[in-house]
Amino acid sequence: MVTTVGQVIKCKAAVCWAAGEELKIEEVEVAPPGAHEVRIKIIYTGICHTDEYTRSGRDPEGVFPVILGHEGGGIVESVGEGVTDVAPGDHVVPLYTAECRECKFCKSGKTNLCGKVRATQGQGLMPDRTSRFTCRGQSIYHFMGTSTFSQYTVVADVSVVAVNKTAPLDKVCLLGCGITTAWGAVTKQPGIKGSSVAVFGCGAIGLGVISTAAMVGASRIIAIDMNSKKEEWAKRMGATDFVNPMTLPGGKRIQDHLIEITDGGLDFTFDATGNVKVMRAALEACHKGWGVSTIIGVAAAGEEISTRPFQLVTGRVWRGTAFGGVKGRTELPGLVEDYLHDKLKIDEYVTHRRQFAEINEGFHDMHSGECIRCVVNME
Amino acid sequence: MVTTVGQVIKCKAAVCWAAGEELKIEEVEVAPPGAHEVRIKIIYTGICHTDEYTRSGRDPEGVFPVILGHEGGGIVESVGEGVTDVAPGDHVVPLYTAECRECKFCKSGKTNLCGKVRATQGQGLMPDRTSRFTCRGQSIYHFMGTSTFSQYTVVADVSVVAVNKTAPLDKVCLLGCGITTAWGAVTKQPGIKGSSVAVFGCGAIGLGVISTAAMVGASRIIAIDMNSKKEEWAKRMGATDFVNPMTLPGGKRIQDHLIEITDGGLDFTFDATGNVKVMRAALEACHKGWGVSTIIGVAAAGEEISTRPFQLVTGRVWRGTAFGGVKGRTELPGLVEDYLHDKLKIDEYVTHRRQFAEINEGFHDMHSGECIRCVVNME
Repeated sequence: MVTTVGQVIKCKAAVCWAAGEELKIEEVEVAPPGAHEVRIKIIYTGICHTDEYTRSGRDPEGVFPVILGHEGGGIVESVGEGVTDVAPGDHVVPLYTAECRECKFCKSGKTNLCGKVRATQGQGLMPDRTSRFTCRGQSIYHFMGTSTFSQYTVVADVSVVAVNKTAPLDKVCLLGCGITTAWGAVTKQPGIKGSSVAVFGCGAIGLGVISTAAMVGASRIIAIDMNSKKEEWAKRMGATDFVNPMTLPGGKRIQDHLIEITDGGLDFTFDATGNVKVMRAALEACHKGWGVSTIIGVAAAGEEISTRPFQLVTGRVWRGTAFGGVKGRTELPGLVEDYLHDKLKIDEYVTHRRQFAEINEGFHDMHSGECIRCVVNME
Repeated sequence: MVTTVGQVIKCKAAVCWAAGEELKIEEVEVAPPGAHEVRIKIIYTGICHTDEYTRSGRDPEGVFPVILGHEGGGIVESVGEGVTDVAPGDHVVPLYTAECRECKFCKSGKTNLCGKVRATQGQGLMPDRTSRFTCRGQSIYHFMGTSTFSQYTVVADVSVVAVNKTAPLDKVCLLGCGITTAWGAVTKQPGIKGSSVAVFGCGAIGLGVISTAAMVGASRIIAIDMNSKKEEWAKRMGATDFVNPMTLPGGKRIQDHLIEITDGGLDFTFDATGNVKVMRAALEACHKGWGVSTIIGVAAAGEEISTRPFQLVTGRVWRGTAFGGVKGRTELPGLVEDYLHDKLKIDEYVTHRRQFAEINEGFHDMHSGECIRCVVNME
């Protein structure tokens, strides 16, 4: 077997050449990992709304041409100098939320928002401000520090974690974003056990919140979605109630309805829609005196949330979470073990599968309303 | 001595006959307390911006004619049937935030927002939906369940607390609102010790937040006010820094300046202005990952706060507090003891004094920018 270590690898990747264009499967060159970098053979990847947000051109910080994708599962092909935590052959999940364990944020013990590679990651570059991808002689940008829509990708060593090799990569790839985000949003919020919860939006994240809230013992879980077909999904995951706000009589506001059916409002609400109007409804559906509303969804650029300050002065709390507050390198191996021991659902989320050549169809699947997650086979 | 028990008392009160009018000292009749009611001889009262807010007509829920005032200190004259916690002769502070110890809110252990008399209090009435005040043959509304701008007032027994008789009533009256609110906003927020704090607005509440933050051991306390004369006040109370946002070069935003001088933002911020734009600045001045912003100020009706949801998703928390989260009947006696043992500042706040006949001048004092609190002698 000819080794690829230290060599440029030629492989296929889905390149988005410009905002709004469909992805194009291209032959790309992937440079070897530099110091503190890891080259990964991606085996499976999920498709998430954040990929679509940047592809569509709505993300004002999007840079092109780019290789998207941030829910990947793969195998380490080679590592650069100074990499100690993963080795060739390890099964890994790339992490768009790095964990360096050295920066002010990591050391604070209060947040998972590592600052180490944030700036360059946002610019579509590796920490040394260059790219590892070339296509047709042109440098291609990285995305979220992961770029999992390539058969090979290079990530910073603080942006990857090794997991149990016995776990199927077509499942644990989804821990790279949605399921972990939902799990963290619930488990890191004290007080859910025995409390009432409302979840706005029944996509992968919303369903994950429902499932985790049921696992930790919420007393009532109200799922809200404009698509009534999601009722069956929500209840399968553990929701006790389902409300389609479009079916409320006389244009009644969802927050008013929820306050009515819960005798004053919810103990906890979660927004998993990214819609700023829904975020407001989620806050205002909280119980006076103690309700806590968590924003998980990512809003479009420039959009703002608003409410009357009276909502907060009378005891509601508005907060948010990114990647569920999870520290990926520290916590993902445990989540994989939970999955292997039937304590965390992943299989249920995989409704669609696609071969790499059909990745654009995977994006269409996502919009269909029938899809929770589409997993793409990169081989 | 002729007893007044069971009799209508004629005394002087400052009546606000209509929105926007100055108060008028009138002879009023104060009916005896009904069951679970307490009649109090008010000895001193503070004047607070909330009184002015309703007087001015900006409060859309204001009802007239009304007897304003909610920072009072007095002596119980008589009690109605079923009153057990206070007795004639007790020195008391009326509480606009009741504490019944029986409702869902009181029993939750999560909030001080008692629900027992909320609805009728908001309508300017006693719990039986009537008024105890008559003037010129006309029924006069109560205000905030306290109406301390009268030589005698009647309050619900859940809305009053007895305190140590050795404490001067011209000082402890201020525990009826501002100082207690500030104290609670800080002491009930975990983590202030050793943390950085910014306080927007250096009125009585802002200064109280500064003083309490210094007492619990905040590492840095930045005071912000558009009136540079407040710098001396703020520093006397314990502020380490003072910023007048109007003096920043080139229209620089106060939140950007604060993030710069604190290497990333504050651990905790407090709004004590009631201005919704300032509330936003206070949130956005918080450190990414963990900053917590608390709204204490009361905004004008209909005004809304807004920000980009990204501010919350990246780890800032937006919350608020009413009466500092303090349960008045349970906690005020301890605050009075703290004051008597030099653990709580009150004297420092009293910059102005007025006789009852000059109460309108007291309102003018409040607007002067030199005034922290004006205490009115009701005798």
